[in-house]
Amino acid sequence: MFIKNAWYVAATSEEIAEKPLARTVCNQKLVFFRNVAGKVTALEDFCPHRGAPLSLGFVRDGNIVCGYHGLAISDQGKCAGMPGQRVGGFPSIKRFAVEEKYGFIWLWAADAETADVSKLPVLTWADSDNWAYGGGLYHIGCDYRLMIDNLMDLTHETYVHSSSIGQPEIEDAPPQTVVEGDMVVTSRHMHNIAPPPFWANALRLNELDPTALCDRWQICRFTPPSHVMIEVGVAYAGRGGYEADDAIKASSVVVDFITPETDSSIWYFWGMARKFKVNDAALTATIREGQGRIFAEDQEMLESQQRNLLANPERKLLKLNIDSGGVQARKVIDRLIAAETK
Amino acid sequence: MFIKNAWYVAATSEEIAEKPLARTVCNQKLVFFRNVAGKVTALEDFCPHRGAPLSLGFVRDGNIVCGYHGLAISDQGKCAGMPGQRVGGFPSIKRFAVEEKYGFIWLWAADAETADVSKLPVLTWADSDNWAYGGGLYHIGCDYRLMIDNLMDLTHETYVHSSSIGQPEIEDAPPQTVVEGDMVVTSRHMHNIAPPPFWANALRLNELDPTALCDRWQICRFTPPSHVMIEVGVAYAGRGGYEADDAIKASSVVVDFITPETDSSIWYFWGMARKFKVNDAALTATIREGQGRIFAEDQEMLESQQRNLLANPERKLLKLNIDSGGVQARKVIDRLIAAETK
Amino acid sequence: MFIKNAWYVAATSEEIAEKPLARTVCNQKLVFFRNVAGKVTALEDFCPHRGAPLSLGFVRDGNIVCGYHGLAISDQGKCAGMPGQRVGGFPSIKRFAVEEKYGFIWLWAADAETADVSKLPVLTWADSDNWAYGGGLYHIGCDYRLMIDNLMDLTHETYVHSSSIGQPEIEDAPPQTVVEGDMVVTSRHMHNIAPPPFWANALRLNELDPTALCDRWQICRFTPPSHVMIEVGVAYAGRGGYEADDAIKASSVVVDFITPETDSSIWYFWGMARKFKVNDAALTATIREGQGRIFAEDQEMLESQQRNLLANPERKLLKLNIDSGGVQARKVIDRLIAAETK
Repeated sequence: MFIKNAWYVAATSEEIAEKPLARTVCNQKLVFFRNVAGKVTALEDFCPHRGAPLSLGFVRDGNIVCGYHGLAISDQGKCAGMPGQRVGGFPSIKRFAVEEKYGFIWLWAADAETADVSKLPVLTWADSDNWAYGGGLYHIGCDYRLMIDNLMDLTHETYVHSSSIGQPEIEDAPPQTVVEGDMVVTSRHMHNIAPPPFWANALRLNELDPTALCDRWQICRFTPPSHVMIEVGVAYAGRGGYEADDAIKASSVVVDFITPETDSSIWYFWGMARKFKVNDAALTATIREGQGRIFAEDQEMLESQQRNLLANPERKLLKLNIDSGGVQARKVIDRLIAAETK
Repeated sequence: MFIKNAWYVAATSEEIAEKPLARTVCNQKLVFFRNVAGKVTALEDFCPHRGAPLSLGFVRDGNIVCGYHGLAISDQGKCAGMPGQRVGGFPSIKRFAVEEKYGFIWLWAADAETADVSKLPVLTWADSDNWAYGGGLYHIGCDYRLMIDNLMDLTHETYVHSSSIGQPEIEDAPPQTVVEGDMVVTSRHMHNIAPPPFWANALRLNELDPTALCDRWQICRFTPPSHVMIEVGVAYAGRGGYEADDAIKASSVVVDFITPETDSSIWYFWGMARKFKVNDAALTATIREGQGRIFAEDQEMLESQQRNLLANPERKLLKLNIDSGGVQARKVIDRLIAAETK
Repeated sequence: MFIKNAWYVAATSEEIAEKPLARTVCNQKLVFFRNVAGKVTALEDFCPHRGAPLSLGFVRDGNIVCGYHGLAISDQGKCAGMPGQRVGGFPSIKRFAVEEKYGFIWLWAADAETADVSKLPVLTWADSDNWAYGGGLYHIGCDYRLMIDNLMDLTHETYVHSSSIGQPEIEDAPPQTVVEGDMVVTSRHMHNIAPPPFWANALRLNELDPTALCDRWQICRFTPPSHVMIEVGVAYAGRGGYEADDAIKASSVVVDFITPETDSSIWYFWGMARKFKVNDAALTATIREGQGRIFAEDQEMLESQQRNLLANPERKLLKLNIDSGGVQARKVIDRLIAAETK
């Protein structure tokens, strides 16, 4: 069960170059390619001639040409030509609405005619020279909602990421969850704590004292269909915390686009946006590598949890205060799916 | 759905030597071995004692001996002995009719009693000193009919085999399909073209000019249950084409025995028979290697197509003029299956 | 279908050290760990918080702590604490009765309350300084009853283990099977035979003549739920055989605990107990290595047999005199399962 009337991140811009890209999103097998103007197109990955995947073909003159017998399909899904054939009466294939923005390819999961560009998220960090961004893509075998749960309850950092961003003080600071329309915000503030290794290093990179006592914050924002942006950071203790002056803090935005591939697998686009040393490409690479290592630690847990839940469909799980972010996010998802299907 | 009252190629002669061979044909797990006279036998691969596969055993005195507890089964499927046991009352296992001819082991897929040796195909190239043959065996995960489609529509050469036997002129020459009883013949003739790499090389091997303009032909003959023989070749242009004198042509027969393993996998026996330099074993090996490389290019396409069709069972495919060979072959198959089951 | 009111070997003692152990027994996913007193506990491998496997966590103060969000569960399956949470109202998870004895961890497959320690088997060889033991663990993809059949009919040695313990004389000596309550005993005695390689070597290790003619015995004892102990040995011929003086024999007990993992897979704990050179650890290792190699020969046969039987569920197998041990053991199992379920 997915929200259909929404934009999902299907790929990064650089993934779609000369060759077509095959990718399944929300159970739909798709092929992505660029037309002559460079605009990205998404079609169902099924040649109407004999059913071969179009993604095994190639792009010529902005059309995708089937690699089996050469039927060319336009970026509108219409048959555009085939040697020795008149294609006027050939059936079209389904086209999906796609937008390229912020370095990502956004796919509208419902019918293309219903696509609403105004619903694309606004990502200030992606549009500004004051920010730098680096990220990656993981394929994980779990229901997309398990990943939302994971990101809306960061107490797991203490256990899954104990050597980098976890610390016991996380658990001592109860989170607060509020729902604002379709957005769910779970916030946690810790005071007067030693920064864990990841943040000590970030302080050092900001030319701040990595041994200083700090205030630390995590502000997780879920928005439909399945995006979680997390403001995270530390500031010298007692100087305003999240509101402190940039000169005494290290902070960033953890970016999580969770795109369902199937009912039990996701394409997980993760990354980090930062406001310091934004022109330091080597630093971007270092941060991405570190984040990639940390986020890979979730994979075994999420896939094991998925298997356990599939094997025990009747069991009810606990809904603690720390789970409130995920619970509320699921309520938003359920409400929006219900509104679509009635 | 397979034709049952027919001979399928189950193995090559050399595959069945001292050790028994396990192979599934038309969803039936079988064990093949030779009796004392060297005649090949096919039995169901199931020991009546405890259900072990007989193919894990060994051949002794022309019987197959189960490798678990030693029950010996004769080439008629009868229990022939077991240490310490009287086997007179033991049940027999099912025997299948097998013929060895032309270097292949032919299996009758219906009950052995109904086997009709007169229905074995006649392969003139396999029986004559004027021909040389080399071939191989591939296992491919697709419905056998997708491979028939593939071989009856050689326009795919231009896309799948573009570096060897493909050329755009194939698409410019519309094929003609005729049905003659149970045989379907799809022919294509190209005139005044440059030979593609494979044929340029064949001309050279025939001590002919590889740069000469040529006429080229492809005559695909489907016969039940699932054999496709293709006469292919080139001759100096304007000298009669297919009918030209052997002295100015290079030609051969592409041999394709497509044996269903299961509903969605095949044993694909492919090869090439030629009439020139028939005693040149090194040339046979070279041709086999080249053909093997070309035919391996079809595997990914066929297996992807199979997955796409299984995932979209409701979709109708196009039936163009180039598909006529495959469409007509399927009609023959459907008609023969219907005749068997009424 | 398993007997539930019985003790199964779930692990060896050394398998459960600092880290928790995940293991499925009788279709139940379990986590094993030791409490502060070192006593082994088995709980279902499912955290009541969010369904993560507890086995991915760690042991602290005798509790198992979930590796996702830190819920601690006691050795009784009760929630024992979680940072920032009051766990008083949290649901417990299922605990299973476990006993550690003879170097093995024994699991009662039915409800813990029904566990009956008096039903633990008595293993004299495991409790005595006069015996040495070495063994191993294999995972095999077959119904546990196929392994019982295997061990209660040692005629398979001649075929599966022909280079070590097999010899044709096994088949010439018909076995005798008797049922004594819930125990099934199949005995075979061979007289005046050359010892096969394994036993010739054992004679040599006992400083006896490896070329001497011998009497040989195999006494297989099945007891519920799925244990098979086999007394095996050779003695100089004509000196009493199984009853002969220890000074002229080589003998041991083959130990087989067959624990169902699922309906079609087992944990197979195998080993050998011997009464000679009991303090020779190098000899124990040598014997274990040899036995491990021999017992690995059964795996392919058992897994192939399992696949063949699953593909042919309607077929009846033969029940010969050599199969009587397995047939009678299945009758005992069926009778005990029926008694449990009525």
